[in-house]
Amino acid sequence: MTKQDTKQETKQALLDMGLKLIFRHGYNHTGLNEILEAANIPKGSFYYYFSSKEDFGLQALDRFIERNRARIAANLEDQTVDPLTRIHRYFDWYASYLESLEYSQGCLLGNLGQELADQNDAFRLKVDEGMTLVADTLANCLRAAQEAGQINSALDADELSAFIYNSWQGAMLRMKVTKSMTPIWTFKTMLFDVILKP
Amino acid sequence: MTKQDTKQETKQALLDMGLKLIFRHGYNHTGLNEILEAANIPKGSFYYYFSSKEDFGLQALDRFIERNRARIAANLEDQTVDPLTRIHRYFDWYASYLESLEYSQGCLLGNLGQELADQNDAFRLKVDEGMTLVADTLANCLRAAQEAGQINSALDADELSAFIYNSWQGAMLRMKVTKSMTPIWTFKTMLFDVILKP
Repeated sequence: MTKQDTKQETKQALLDMGLKLIFRHGYNHTGLNEILEAANIPKGSFYYYFSSKEDFGLQALDRFIERNRARIAANLEDQTVDPLTRIHRYFDWYASYLESLEYSQGCLLGNLGQELADQNDAFRLKVDEGMTLVADTLANCLRAAQEAGQINSALDADELSAFIYNSWQGAMLRMKVTKSMTPIWTFKTMLFDVILKP
Repeated sequence: MTKQDTKQETKQALLDMGLKLIFRHGYNHTGLNEILEAANIPKGSFYYYFSSKEDFGLQALDRFIERNRARIAANLEDQTVDPLTRIHRYFDWYASYLESLEYSQGCLLGNLGQELADQNDAFRLKVDEGMTLVADTLANCLRAAQEAGQINSALDADELSAFIYNSWQGAMLRMKVTKSMTPIWTFKTMLFDVILKP
């Protein structure tokens, strides 16, 4: 392994640790010292990789969006199954994930959007980029399901997707507040039994 | 004015100032000193009224829920107009309010729910109480609209209300992230033109 590889690994380890802490406690509530202690890295090394806590947070968010892209593609772009099944699988996968976290954390994009949208434009724009990526992928899948006659085709796929994505964020927020999966099940019932019904 | 009245006024002024700051910066990001400076009150006086920052925050949230109850009732329980018009008026009023804040802040319940649901059970339960109050009032109005044949009556009013309320929270989150009213308009179109359609 070259020295460059080791440096890259240290940086990724720092970002992953930061993501975990930010997911749990929020951005403002996660101190730089906490990240350094958890990753067992001295402050000087941190500033070798990142110019500031903000720079670090934005790069961590980039890493999350990249990982998220892969997870979305695995479900919504899986061409081996029909489009409606893909949408079902995406929300089923997500619901299992949320249940495994015992109704906590939710979605990092939603959390950081809520926390930072009014405070920091760089974070706000990156959160928007991450959200738009999911909504666009979902819109393509909805369009394919409409073309296949599987769902209501009277609705504009982009508008529908935006509504579904935003409503899902709201359902996750309520899940956290009620500490129960009920808002998630209600969302799925309304989505598949009412809104998408052909 | 009695001494008791003045004390009550000082306490309310502190709570109102705290609400404003918490709305703008979040709970964790609002320092006790900031509240004291903004309200021009010495630390000793603060501890005369409140046992801790948490006690203060919970009482401020109580005050918000009480004010919110009045605003909801003014729209959703206005018996001089039909139920569907009440629902329209509620979301129209809310949209104008959000527009006046230039797509910032959103709903205090959503913000504190997102920020504190995983950190503090006392806040989580109070946020849930405030959210349930709105959702229950909306459910009653939806039931009345169903009985009057104004909206789709195949759906359970409580489940429908929960879905609408949560989706609205998601729409406000996206509004903050995009700094535009589009998510709010999309929500209203989907609600009135698709979901509630008889």
